[in-house]
Amino acid sequence: MPELRHNVLTREWVIIATERAKRPHEFARKDDGKRVHPPYVESCPFCPGNEQMTPPATLVVPNDGSWKVRVTPNKFAALSYEGERQCSFEGIRRTVTGVGVHEVIIESPDHSKSTALLEDSQVETLIDTYLDRFNFASQDPRVEQVTIFKNHGLAAGTSLEHPHSQIIGSPMITAQIRDRMINALHHFDEYGECIFCRVLEMELKEQTRVVMETEHFVTFVQFAALSPFSMLIMPRRHMSCFSEISNAEAADLAGILRRTLAKLYYGLMDPDFNYAIRTAPQEACGVKYFHWYLSIIPRLTKVAGFELGSGMFINSSLPEENASFLREVAAG
Amino acid sequence: MPELRHNVLTREWVIIATERAKRPHEFARKDDGKRVHPPYVESCPFCPGNEQMTPPATLVVPNDGSWKVRVTPNKFAALSYEGERQCSFEGIRRTVTGVGVHEVIIESPDHSKSTALLEDSQVETLIDTYLDRFNFASQDPRVEQVTIFKNHGLAAGTSLEHPHSQIIGSPMITAQIRDRMINALHHFDEYGECIFCRVLEMELKEQTRVVMETEHFVTFVQFAALSPFSMLIMPRRHMSCFSEISNAEAADLAGILRRTLAKLYYGLMDPDFNYAIRTAPQEACGVKYFHWYLSIIPRLTKVAGFELGSGMFINSSLPEENASFLREVAAG
Repeated sequence: MPELRHNVLTREWVIIATERAKRPHEFARKDDGKRVHPPYVESCPFCPGNEQMTPPATLVVPNDGSWKVRVTPNKFAALSYEGERQCSFEGIRRTVTGVGVHEVIIESPDHSKSTALLEDSQVETLIDTYLDRFNFASQDPRVEQVTIFKNHGLAAGTSLEHPHSQIIGSPMITAQIRDRMINALHHFDEYGECIFCRVLEMELKEQTRVVMETEHFVTFVQFAALSPFSMLIMPRRHMSCFSEISNAEAADLAGILRRTLAKLYYGLMDPDFNYAIRTAPQEACGVKYFHWYLSIIPRLTKVAGFELGSGMFINSSLPEENASFLREVAAG
Repeated sequence: MPELRHNVLTREWVIIATERAKRPHEFARKDDGKRVHPPYVESCPFCPGNEQMTPPATLVVPNDGSWKVRVTPNKFAALSYEGERQCSFEGIRRTVTGVGVHEVIIESPDHSKSTALLEDSQVETLIDTYLDRFNFASQDPRVEQVTIFKNHGLAAGTSLEHPHSQIIGSPMITAQIRDRMINALHHFDEYGECIFCRVLEMELKEQTRVVMETEHFVTFVQFAALSPFSMLIMPRRHMSCFSEISNAEAADLAGILRRTLAKLYYGLMDPDFNYAIRTAPQEACGVKYFHWYLSIIPRLTKVAGFELGSGMFINSSLPEENASFLREVAAG
């Protein structure tokens, strides 16, 4: 019989199709296997030598002529960097000017190197850059919520091959973030504990959904994962906001992120995926009830009318099998 | 400058890319145009003569040997029709047995006829069938929320060509439905009015986003539509629950649904889409603060890392242009 599982962090319900669950290897890309790209593409705006094809860089690391990571304003920005934040309320209609920060973070000069294939030191530079740009966006008085995210592959919403992440600082906090914070706040008030710390403790005790552990982080498939192979990378230390990360933790995050992505890359043949850092906004830095994490969502299945119409999800795989499969995959 | 718009029914924020908005015709399918299927396919489990390929029908209309609409349990049901609803709470872990109703509603014997191309009388039979099965599922004591939905095309999550809808009666009410009801309840308590009635009044007054009106229903693109060409079909009369629909309203809904889908079919060359009926659960039948509607979501763009990670959406089109474009398309 199928089982409904409750996601205690998001209050979402998921139907886990226990009997009809697909086996892990059935989710591997079959069309053309792992994608192979050349290390340099003449027409690629993110390849070295083509820097004039993007807006002027806002950060170049290192800034000595060559570069390892390069940040530029998004040429097709969703929000305008110029302009004032102005809210308008007319009856039931509310609008805000679309101002804020939207940058592209080019992860490496090498066109061919998916994040999973980079050196750990390169991913460390990337995480340091995330932190730099997170702080930059957070300090903009017009910005209320900052999202760092990555789209890999067509199903994940990108057609640009050259590995890159993005950061958007938006002038409003979304209902989704507010709702999850309020949910966590209620748990804290009722039980005197961070709900995220509690989930992590449960996962570490049971081990069945843990994919990988490092000194400072744990990768696990959630008990009520909404979709196959979706995972959280959660810091062991309680921190509400990504900006609280220490140097040692940032280096450790680089390692576990790279190796988690490598397990997806080798185990499922380079699937399309998104990841995003979910964090409390800067104003809630230091609160005891919220806990930041990185969420990885392989785009292996389609969201259909039932999910859109009800807010309930159907996961055609078993979280415990997902984790056990990925534990066995070498991380390169 | 882009504009952030607030969706007052869902509390979601949408970035409307005003300057970089694509023109309506750019969203039309370009790959192979309108899909043409044969009226009968020997291997199709939903074609007449293949009735033994599905579980035994739960409703056949008319039941005289031939049929216009046929309902069967889903052969690959997400929920088991057999079994008890049992909730289990262990610490922070909550599970419910996956029991409930999951049926397929075969919309017509004709394999080739997309809903947009059916006779109005056929769609009337379909809506009457929706109502019959909605009431059937709602009366099941294990069922708390009923969702009627349709997936059309690969991007919308189906590979089955033969036009069909589905109904799922699930044993839990989702946080999404609860949150929207609570949001509407707060509005009612503060302003003494149904927020949906208020939105409809505003749309009818402004007319810029109205696509079509009939005696009992209005199709419009929402002011803060999350994605291009997504539309609501809303009843003019206040009703919280789909089951409150009158015979005259059901017939009218058939007409406006068929013609709205035909405008998408001819205007955008048969795009993939989902639709779903959002309604209060049976227990909230008759409440003054909630209002059912049918939501149509063409799957023209991909949800990417920003949307998944933040809960904010980017709409690369203008709702007012979407509506004005569709108003001009003949509905066949």
